[in-house]
Amino acid sequence: MTGYFHDIAPIRFEGPDSSNEFAYRHYDPDEVVLGKRMEDHLRLAVAYWHSLAYEGADPFGGRTFDRPWYGDTMADARRKADAAFDMFAILGQPYFCFHDADVRPEGASFAESRRNLDEICDVFAAKMEQTGTKLLWGTANMFSHRRWMAGAATNPDPEVFAYAAACVKACMDVTHRLNGENYVLWGGREGYETLLNTDLTREADQAGRFLSKVVEYKHKIGFKGTILIEPKPQEPAKHQYDFDVATVYGFLKRFGLENEVKLNIEQGHAILAGHSFEHELALAASLDMLGSIDMNRNDYQSGWDTDQFPNNTPEIALAYYEVLRAGGFTTGGTNYDSRVRRQSLDPEDLILSHVGAIDVCARGLKAAAAMLEDGGLEKARQDRYAGWDKPEGQALLDQPLDEIAAAVEAQGIDPQPRSGRQERLENWVNRFV
Amino acid sequence: MTGYFHDIAPIRFEGPDSSNEFAYRHYDPDEVVLGKRMEDHLRLAVAYWHSLAYEGADPFGGRTFDRPWYGDTMADARRKADAAFDMFAILGQPYFCFHDADVRPEGASFAESRRNLDEICDVFAAKMEQTGTKLLWGTANMFSHRRWMAGAATNPDPEVFAYAAACVKACMDVTHRLNGENYVLWGGREGYETLLNTDLTREADQAGRFLSKVVEYKHKIGFKGTILIEPKPQEPAKHQYDFDVATVYGFLKRFGLENEVKLNIEQGHAILAGHSFEHELALAASLDMLGSIDMNRNDYQSGWDTDQFPNNTPEIALAYYEVLRAGGFTTGGTNYDSRVRRQSLDPEDLILSHVGAIDVCARGLKAAAAMLEDGGLEKARQDRYAGWDKPEGQALLDQPLDEIAAAVEAQGIDPQPRSGRQERLENWVNRFV
Amino acid sequence: MTGYFHDIAPIRFEGPDSSNEFAYRHYDPDEVVLGKRMEDHLRLAVAYWHSLAYEGADPFGGRTFDRPWYGDTMADARRKADAAFDMFAILGQPYFCFHDADVRPEGASFAESRRNLDEICDVFAAKMEQTGTKLLWGTANMFSHRRWMAGAATNPDPEVFAYAAACVKACMDVTHRLNGENYVLWGGREGYETLLNTDLTREADQAGRFLSKVVEYKHKIGFKGTILIEPKPQEPAKHQYDFDVATVYGFLKRFGLENEVKLNIEQGHAILAGHSFEHELALAASLDMLGSIDMNRNDYQSGWDTDQFPNNTPEIALAYYEVLRAGGFTTGGTNYDSRVRRQSLDPEDLILSHVGAIDVCARGLKAAAAMLEDGGLEKARQDRYAGWDKPEGQALLDQPLDEIAAAVEAQGIDPQPRSGRQERLENWVNRFV
Amino acid sequence: MTGYFHDIAPIRFEGPDSSNEFAYRHYDPDEVVLGKRMEDHLRLAVAYWHSLAYEGADPFGGRTFDRPWYGDTMADARRKADAAFDMFAILGQPYFCFHDADVRPEGASFAESRRNLDEICDVFAAKMEQTGTKLLWGTANMFSHRRWMAGAATNPDPEVFAYAAACVKACMDVTHRLNGENYVLWGGREGYETLLNTDLTREADQAGRFLSKVVEYKHKIGFKGTILIEPKPQEPAKHQYDFDVATVYGFLKRFGLENEVKLNIEQGHAILAGHSFEHELALAASLDMLGSIDMNRNDYQSGWDTDQFPNNTPEIALAYYEVLRAGGFTTGGTNYDSRVRRQSLDPEDLILSHVGAIDVCARGLKAAAAMLEDGGLEKARQDRYAGWDKPEGQALLDQPLDEIAAAVEAQGIDPQPRSGRQERLENWVNRFV
Repeated sequence: MTGYFHDIAPIRFEGPDSSNEFAYRHYDPDEVVLGKRMEDHLRLAVAYWHSLAYEGADPFGGRTFDRPWYGDTMADARRKADAAFDMFAILGQPYFCFHDADVRPEGASFAESRRNLDEICDVFAAKMEQTGTKLLWGTANMFSHRRWMAGAATNPDPEVFAYAAACVKACMDVTHRLNGENYVLWGGREGYETLLNTDLTREADQAGRFLSKVVEYKHKIGFKGTILIEPKPQEPAKHQYDFDVATVYGFLKRFGLENEVKLNIEQGHAILAGHSFEHELALAASLDMLGSIDMNRNDYQSGWDTDQFPNNTPEIALAYYEVLRAGGFTTGGTNYDSRVRRQSLDPEDLILSHVGAIDVCARGLKAAAAMLEDGGLEKARQDRYAGWDKPEGQALLDQPLDEIAAAVEAQGIDPQPRSGRQERLENWVNRFV
Repeated sequence: MTGYFHDIAPIRFEGPDSSNEFAYRHYDPDEVVLGKRMEDHLRLAVAYWHSLAYEGADPFGGRTFDRPWYGDTMADARRKADAAFDMFAILGQPYFCFHDADVRPEGASFAESRRNLDEICDVFAAKMEQTGTKLLWGTANMFSHRRWMAGAATNPDPEVFAYAAACVKACMDVTHRLNGENYVLWGGREGYETLLNTDLTREADQAGRFLSKVVEYKHKIGFKGTILIEPKPQEPAKHQYDFDVATVYGFLKRFGLENEVKLNIEQGHAILAGHSFEHELALAASLDMLGSIDMNRNDYQSGWDTDQFPNNTPEIALAYYEVLRAGGFTTGGTNYDSRVRRQSLDPEDLILSHVGAIDVCARGLKAAAAMLEDGGLEKARQDRYAGWDKPEGQALLDQPLDEIAAAVEAQGIDPQPRSGRQERLENWVNRFV
Repeated sequence: MTGYFHDIAPIRFEGPDSSNEFAYRHYDPDEVVLGKRMEDHLRLAVAYWHSLAYEGADPFGGRTFDRPWYGDTMADARRKADAAFDMFAILGQPYFCFHDADVRPEGASFAESRRNLDEICDVFAAKMEQTGTKLLWGTANMFSHRRWMAGAATNPDPEVFAYAAACVKACMDVTHRLNGENYVLWGGREGYETLLNTDLTREADQAGRFLSKVVEYKHKIGFKGTILIEPKPQEPAKHQYDFDVATVYGFLKRFGLENEVKLNIEQGHAILAGHSFEHELALAASLDMLGSIDMNRNDYQSGWDTDQFPNNTPEIALAYYEVLRAGGFTTGGTNYDSRVRRQSLDPEDLILSHVGAIDVCARGLKAAAAMLEDGGLEKARQDRYAGWDKPEGQALLDQPLDEIAAAVEAQGIDPQPRSGRQERLENWVNRFV
Repeated sequence: MTGYFHDIAPIRFEGPDSSNEFAYRHYDPDEVVLGKRMEDHLRLAVAYWHSLAYEGADPFGGRTFDRPWYGDTMADARRKADAAFDMFAILGQPYFCFHDADVRPEGASFAESRRNLDEICDVFAAKMEQTGTKLLWGTANMFSHRRWMAGAATNPDPEVFAYAAACVKACMDVTHRLNGENYVLWGGREGYETLLNTDLTREADQAGRFLSKVVEYKHKIGFKGTILIEPKPQEPAKHQYDFDVATVYGFLKRFGLENEVKLNIEQGHAILAGHSFEHELALAASLDMLGSIDMNRNDYQSGWDTDQFPNNTPEIALAYYEVLRAGGFTTGGTNYDSRVRRQSLDPEDLILSHVGAIDVCARGLKAAAAMLEDGGLEKARQDRYAGWDKPEGQALLDQPLDEIAAAVEAQGIDPQPRSGRQERLENWVNRFV
């Protein structure tokens, strides 16, 4: 233990009546839900960047936090890793996720940065071995350094594309080495600030080629994890190409990659794109593209990515309902892409923010499972579309327009609307959340 | 002439110094721009629904307008047609667009509605012959009547799907008969109010089948126009499936229809989806899906479809820049999907709102043409991506990830950012608008 | 009983384990919460306009509902009143609210409209006497008819101002006669569509004068209820003058009415103004202006007023927390300004939408009461500001700038930030909701 | 000259036909507009923070710019001042604006920071004397340093309040010494992240007391400039107390400061609050609170403060129309609170971004002046309200409600709506922009 969290004992499950803020009230990893341990359903992961690397800055102010591991040396990076694994232990979390830039100092050259990454991953490997913590996914940060200001794969400068390729290769290598279960691409700068200087056709082509290479390389090295794209509509860019689930689907179809790549869907990004989280999840499931989730919370009224810890159980229940309905996670899991507010300065804030999030995820999961077991919603849905399961409904799908039209006239078809029962279904949901 | 507009003489071009509000200051149909008459570039069309059928209601109040043609009989429909063609004549507009529900009364049965439509289209045919006015596109209103409340093609009730098929067939027939140059589908209720009662997989499949039928029927009857989908993200529905250009592209790819269907893109809908109009146009052009435009204006700060007449020339110039850069319209054109505000009660308001819109379109087009002729923007864009035209750039697209990574290390590649020059390009644009 | 709801028995409390959708699971009117019956805390009211008068139209479609009382005659109005009181009885609701236009047909003249209103209020009086149902508030609809299109009190035409004065007087009279506990003004058209034709100075002056007359008239007739203004930022108008709580406060101060008028605050309007509901409530309480609430729910992602039935308990708990912290309602109460979705066609939808809302209000109230009784939040808040309760803190408020500055330099004051503990407080809240 | 801009000659007016990007096409300081030199109308000011201190960071990436004056020493601060005045000279700008933190390094104590500020202001004084550049306004940055994370005047910790008082006093002193024409307060952290830990009543009281002290101190030192508050609704805070013009008005009335303080209104902040810029200007003018403007541009579709250089002439014309209609600036002026995009790396970008902005301001001003001289809009507005200038209209304002109601019935008043002519007025505006 580094001592940073020295006062804080590992968090244990104490049940819903506990008023101990350092206990889980709902998260009991071993509780069996729909035939599976809760831990195995949720597959919770701590986000290294927010929990270890974020310093409390916002667009109008600098660092507010004061952590002993901040700094630019490999020694700092090792200290950060120590603190990270202390934190995982306190929380009892099975997984973590990281970007290269979160875990190692930038080197003077790409080679040095890559060596730094390899070295810190040796540290991780040892700690993971020792503690049983696993890697949900790795990724390359291709947005913070100034070289990425105009994009990575979609950069107007081929050298940046090349550098991006090298970064992703290096991160895939360590993700593979650490038995990461997925590899994520977030195209934070794949987009534009102004259309005036942007060639959409070229940039899409570059992005398609780049992703194809990533898929090829995955197969070459025998990485069995899933390649995931994380949609976001804008911010930092004015427009980001991986706008939402539907947009990424079109992109993958365009480049023939729809069977190779799935999605990592974030609540906050869904909201910024004008969608509910459950919409994005349900759509991805419907398109067989649901991979993993970033379970944070975005302020609906702040037009930027707030990455708050989730805390609204009814919303979380609807999200997990879609996950469970789609069969649950396979390689994916629940990464909090959440960070404490910049006024939450203390080690306790860092721990308790996670505790609260874990508990609402547990509550949400249990509510979702109960809804699925009850079956009321699925029954209502089936009833609503029942006409389509009849022979006439099925036949209609294959008939040509003029034949259908003739039948409408001949039979005097005059469809009568039936109630959509929205409020009754909402009330039904409220029985479980 | 019906007499409704009796005081208003046909609008003539008088040049930019005119202070006559009943004159065009910028729109001279015969002025040659980039080698083509302005009229032939813009292909302006009056929207029957807003200009003739809208009664001035909003969600908090009823009819404010008082037009002599309001009513539910065929006689009213004929009076409306008379007024419409008077209006087209006063404005000197080459095109119009309509929904079935705008032009004919709803019948007691589908057959009667269809006969009403046929009959009013005879009236149109005669008037079009006589005046030379043409039909830019026709469409079926499958959102106003209560039967559509849960969607048309995506309805849970197969009978509604059938009824929708009959409507579209009837509208395609009259559009074909009137030599319409396009046929448009706007899926105003193809979406959902709540995900709780919605089966995304079924509804997408229904939509795909329906559109395939439309395409088949087009070929069957020999309609040479273009089938267009008009994206909109939400309103009236909570979520609409044809969210934006990228979403519709994915949908078309999914059902193999990307070579059969193009897009009708509306400024207001682009904005509601979180995009600039020029983004949607440029993206559609890049995907070879740019068909036609609805050139209105949405209040950026009203989260609903305001359908105002366009009036910001700099924005319009950027829109037409994308249209011209893509080669201009073929079957498409410029439909104002605009309506006067509900306080604009007078016949003069109806005419002058169009006059203002036509003039800003003319100004925008001329500015766009001047920008394209100058070439400054295209030159800057080409320069920015010049590295990709070199052999090394081209080679990069084909190299595998690990080879690129090896080269980055071996050559110590360290890309240096270059200015994106956004403000200089914006200043350049301001020389023309 | 009218028979419209004939199958539906009065809704009874059955407790949280009930799976009967026609029962209250949380609302037990007689349960004592913080020393008061739940019914007396919540003071629930049905909104006549949504529940009886709304026909299911939206901006893209017409009537979907089919109620036997729709129509323009006094007989229809009586039938509507019968259905309304049936509904109140089934729900066991103590209060209702109405606009003049909801309850009586528009007459050929103001006098006839007023007589219609008086007549229907006789009907109400008898039914109220008989059932014990009470009137939470009355109001005048000064936005639906075309005469109001450019505002009521703020209209450019003095005749409209006069007509508005007559309407409000008539509605205040009946509200007074029916022992209404408040009188509400919603300035749906007090605002503008375009600044170009608007004189802000004149319109504010007209509004101030009008409100002063309302206050004078209240005193003249001895009405003991509260005059309430309901803020909303926009829709239908581009800009509405009663934008939000802070704006109305400034308006009242400007015209010296801050001790005479309080606020009726709606969740949906708060959200459209960019605020959380609890913000508006807390601010109103802080300014001693909290009167009554419209407890609906707005889709955060639809930029228009969705007026959905509330269903998110954690949000409702935070709202009632502010109400309780401010001492609870006096003349005010909880009006659902909510309506069923236009696809919810059935009588059951009308009843069950209210049942769900009533239950989440009950849950929210109980959670809020528990939070207040626990005291954890208030304790944390007091601790955070404790420095201000010390003599040095108090002294600071009175010292001039230069003296304070001198002390800062002399004492080398260097304030050290302390954690705001946001996530810990959010976790604490989650213990109760 | 520092040499940083060495290639760039002072920008001169060359007229609208010039294609020299290093020339003014519209800004001719000596051109007389409405009887006053253009320079004296616009009173343009460079914002030190954006143009000199901003390093190109955004929430997802660090510094992109590379300026020789970046650094934390007094020598760096002097180099920055040299560059600043070079820039002012190249642009020929009469004014600048600054925060304390922009111009001096933070010291180890408040006293050292204050001495650093005094010292750099000596540098400014000499340069101002030498070049004739003037100070439009000064201000204190009370949001960047971590001490301000929970607010300045509204901080829960009285020591922060004290420190804030010392900062403002120091900045007012130097602003006074440099003959600044205004002093601005922007409450970037005066607001909250979560209502859960916030006491609105205390914080409002603290803010009122603080502002009173500022006003007292102004009088004490004989500062003749105007005290200005700059509204902004949110970001960085979840909610900021100085939300918009109407909110600040209410605040000032509450603390009796409405005759002492005016407003500095920013386009971007207006938009984030849901208002048009011209709305905020017109409202401030109507309330006699219009002080100065921040003429930038916010992306309407990015929910955060984008602070782009203005470039839409029609919008700028409407803004200056409100300024001119209110009598023009007195102590206020036009500060660009604008910064180059983070990809605009070059010295040329820094200069040309301003050149473009200056030119659109000049175009906008001239268009506004022409509109005002033409008088068409004011005439239309007067006509619309003409009824209120008649004796009956005037009388109405003083009559009680019941007398008016009696007259409405007696006279059978039935107001008939008249067209608001919105589109005709919009067309009229388009003649000038």
